[in-house]
Amino acid sequence: MGDTALRIIPLGGLGEIGKNMMAYEYGDDILIVDTGLMFPPNDLPGIDYIIPDFQYLYDKAHRVRGIVYTHGHEDHTGAVRHVLERIPAPMYATPLTKGLLEVKLKGDKVLRNIPIHEVKAGQRVRIGAFTVEFIHVTHSIPDAVALAISSPEGVVIHTGDYKFDQTPIDGKPTDFAALASYARRGKGVLALLADSTNADKPGWTPSERVITPALEAAMREAPGRVLVATFASLISRMQQVAEVALRLGRKIAFVGTSMVENARMARKLGYLRIPDEAWITLEEALNLPPQEVVLMVTGSQGEPSSILGRLAGLGGRGRRPFNIEAGDTVIIAAHPIPGNAENVYRTINRLIQRGAQVLYDPVAQVHVSGHASQEEMKLMLNLVQPRYFIPIHGELRHLVQHARLAQQVGIPKDRIAVVENGQVIEFRNGQMRLAERVPGSWVFVEGGVVSETSIRDIWDRQDLARRGLLLVEVPVSAATGRLAGPIEVITRGFSLPDGGEEFIGLLRKRIKRTLAKGSSGDVEKTLTSITQNLAYNELRRRPIVLVFLKPQSPIEAGNCEQGA
Amino acid sequence: MGDTALRIIPLGGLGEIGKNMMAYEYGDDILIVDTGLMFPPNDLPGIDYIIPDFQYLYDKAHRVRGIVYTHGHEDHTGAVRHVLERIPAPMYATPLTKGLLEVKLKGDKVLRNIPIHEVKAGQRVRIGAFTVEFIHVTHSIPDAVALAISSPEGVVIHTGDYKFDQTPIDGKPTDFAALASYARRGKGVLALLADSTNADKPGWTPSERVITPALEAAMREAPGRVLVATFASLISRMQQVAEVALRLGRKIAFVGTSMVENARMARKLGYLRIPDEAWITLEEALNLPPQEVVLMVTGSQGEPSSILGRLAGLGGRGRRPFNIEAGDTVIIAAHPIPGNAENVYRTINRLIQRGAQVLYDPVAQVHVSGHASQEEMKLMLNLVQPRYFIPIHGELRHLVQHARLAQQVGIPKDRIAVVENGQVIEFRNGQMRLAERVPGSWVFVEGGVVSETSIRDIWDRQDLARRGLLLVEVPVSAATGRLAGPIEVITRGFSLPDGGEEFIGLLRKRIKRTLAKGSSGDVEKTLTSITQNLAYNELRRRPIVLVFLKPQSPIEAGNCEQGA
Repeated sequence: MGDTALRIIPLGGLGEIGKNMMAYEYGDDILIVDTGLMFPPNDLPGIDYIIPDFQYLYDKAHRVRGIVYTHGHEDHTGAVRHVLERIPAPMYATPLTKGLLEVKLKGDKVLRNIPIHEVKAGQRVRIGAFTVEFIHVTHSIPDAVALAISSPEGVVIHTGDYKFDQTPIDGKPTDFAALASYARRGKGVLALLADSTNADKPGWTPSERVITPALEAAMREAPGRVLVATFASLISRMQQVAEVALRLGRKIAFVGTSMVENARMARKLGYLRIPDEAWITLEEALNLPPQEVVLMVTGSQGEPSSILGRLAGLGGRGRRPFNIEAGDTVIIAAHPIPGNAENVYRTINRLIQRGAQVLYDPVAQVHVSGHASQEEMKLMLNLVQPRYFIPIHGELRHLVQHARLAQQVGIPKDRIAVVENGQVIEFRNGQMRLAERVPGSWVFVEGGVVSETSIRDIWDRQDLARRGLLLVEVPVSAATGRLAGPIEVITRGFSLPDGGEEFIGLLRKRIKRTLAKGSSGDVEKTLTSITQNLAYNELRRRPIVLVFLKPQSPIEAGNCEQGA
Repeated sequence: MGDTALRIIPLGGLGEIGKNMMAYEYGDDILIVDTGLMFPPNDLPGIDYIIPDFQYLYDKAHRVRGIVYTHGHEDHTGAVRHVLERIPAPMYATPLTKGLLEVKLKGDKVLRNIPIHEVKAGQRVRIGAFTVEFIHVTHSIPDAVALAISSPEGVVIHTGDYKFDQTPIDGKPTDFAALASYARRGKGVLALLADSTNADKPGWTPSERVITPALEAAMREAPGRVLVATFASLISRMQQVAEVALRLGRKIAFVGTSMVENARMARKLGYLRIPDEAWITLEEALNLPPQEVVLMVTGSQGEPSSILGRLAGLGGRGRRPFNIEAGDTVIIAAHPIPGNAENVYRTINRLIQRGAQVLYDPVAQVHVSGHASQEEMKLMLNLVQPRYFIPIHGELRHLVQHARLAQQVGIPKDRIAVVENGQVIEFRNGQMRLAERVPGSWVFVEGGVVSETSIRDIWDRQDLARRGLLLVEVPVSAATGRLAGPIEVITRGFSLPDGGEEFIGLLRKRIKRTLAKGSSGDVEKTLTSITQNLAYNELRRRPIVLVFLKPQSPIEAGNCEQGA
């Protein structure tokens, strides 16, 4: 036991560190915290979403005693299916989080049978060598928790996503007492792992409550229908919109599968309080006078295939559930995730073109961040008084900034570990050290399945897109090796000027000449570089060129057959 | 003359309206304002930059009496070469703007001979039916002007990019008196066309001056080299950095062709004041003690091929001028243009990985916007007191917001025109009306030349990138039409699992079977859909499939030759 150590491992993710999935290891026991996904930045064409590369755990599945969840957002739960397929370990989650997980798994006959233990904030659960206390924190979804993870090596506080909202929508502020209690207890807190998302934002993050007036003003002034776009898992935003809608005599309809499923579940569990008469279907909504309706839709990130994206005519697949009309008011109750800004603003402009009035932050304060800002981060550090500090949940730039804040509140530099995914952090006899690195990158999911797509493949895709494609079919006499007919040219991603006559003519000449010479060596290769040069000199383009030789059966053959 | 009208035409651009280029038309005379380019959002692969579609002017070149410039930034000057090629009209610009235009044109033997008339702020110039007064305004570059464009129809004030900086770096605040004078003169101001870029930002934009303390603090605390990244045309930022550097006993070197050329020119014209002994080359800088050096570099937008991008190891072409070392301090003195945010933050993270300390807004106030915020916009409206208002310079969402502000200061809704590019606005006998629409979209530039790339081509590129490419070469017996050898499969953008053996085997079987059946109709088409289906069923992919039949000369031919 003396040589046993606590090992903390931020598993993979793209850009952000320790966000989507982490592992705690003590002796023979492993505890997983969260199984989230990341939405791809838009320079990853074709990728649906990204999950952590947790291959470090593949051969240790039998040692995983449980998977603990901090809250129900996609970036902390979305990869559950992929993780359970390799690690069918029991899960522990608060009621709403459990409900959201069940919605995800209900389609899978096998996985849906893996137990999800319901835990309430304040409860302590023994999981292998670990005892985990679930501590209520505020975020943009109810039932979020920080974790106090005790092992023989000491107590680690893992905040999950949080902000200190003193007036949360569900009326339940952070359990400061529970957070603070560990500082005084026993040897105090060994280490704090805390959310760094807003480490570069000074001050305090406003309460979710502050957007109610903005919502209310918007809905009161709205001459017709009101559409509110947000994340399908932003349950507290749903409640807020519902409350305002009711006050103003509007009924509310949820649009989009995920939106509807989550809302139903949250309502069943009592996290969404909407009276029956106010809860209507889209069909009912479209038959009511516009000024009596609020529609909750997906698409706050400008996804072309989302409801809002389709309404804006961004040409996503799937039909439009209805059309945007002059007099409609659209409220974007979310911030663009970096990389989505263009799509979001494009959506907004298109909606305006179609006659809608669009409200979004900063035009109106219809969204606030769900993450702590600098002053809250300092408060968390002072509440917990950890011996060691490990910033998580953020890009390197955020972790570095969070580390600066920790030094400001008096944590010495050498007790702060700014690490990247895959870096094992080891605690032995109260001392922290950086141990080995394990795989900690990411895995792409395409068409709903884990793909073997590599970064190299992605580069090729970007290259294809930048350069376009130029294919040449060259008929060659099998007998003489000379050009035996007109060449065929196909382009993708660019067009040849005026139908390409001139270019194809020139290309044909050069190919003919080359073949006539009876070139030595790889003919396809020679013709490829000829084509590349011509494309550059004539079109100033560097397309990806592929040349295919089409051998033509020699005339002799024909003659011969006749002759025979 | 009675039926002559003043026509104002916002020419093309992508997303933003009336930003890069506008035309004023009266009777037989046309005046062009600015000839700018746009940098492509990152979902336009392969596009270098975008210029306005000004085909409306192609057949009117002989009527264009002049091109007037508001200031020297790329988005107002960058398309000059392309415009002059079709419309070799005389240009009118303030000294610094003139200098920046000359740098752009010096490479072109023909264009560099088209006259650029130097005008000073405060000057009036007669250009055809128009009299243009150049009115000094503050922006993030010296020598910026608003235009008072008089015609028989009345006076139009065209702000260009501006903010009301009361303490500008060059000590020359906006000429409020000149702006205000037109309200009282004659019939007052017919119309105001004003910059809407920050229409959703409340309050006032801070003075450029406010970033000096942040720069000074950063440089004072910097243990080693300081790199400052900004736009090559952000001349006032250069001056600011230089002044702070000198105060702290650091010498300054400019890195990157555009940076060096612009700095040299600005200094020659007296817009950049740096003593000889403080102005050093990169080579000299690399041989000085790090703490005595400041390097001004390009790459504030995270462009991989920029100096900073290369230093961050983002794999742009071109060698690294030097390496980032622990102890280096990098200051990003610019904001990411929407669409660049990912690249900028990726750059920052990579620089941190390499040991640099990186300062950027909001971590430190090392940048402020060069555009007016809401209170400044209201002030502009109240200074000019226009009869009509036309918001320009912004996306539709910004124009709509600017229009709201105009209504707040008392301009009636029916005297405000929110239009898109290509919409002709006509003033006749003091009345405004929307006339016809002319082409007002955009033109892509690739490889330095105007390309015929269409949106359709762009979609194809994105499609290529999302789906990847699957090429199949099928050897077919010319005699029997049966499979006559192993098929060849090439993929781009994705890889076949474990070398593809299994997939290629399956594909071969199906193709063989189909060919054996001696299928009727288009064989390539049939094989293409077979391949598509297999790709989806086996790989869950929908690549772009291209099948090439390779006819094989029948054996008979050979036999025959022997036989003969």
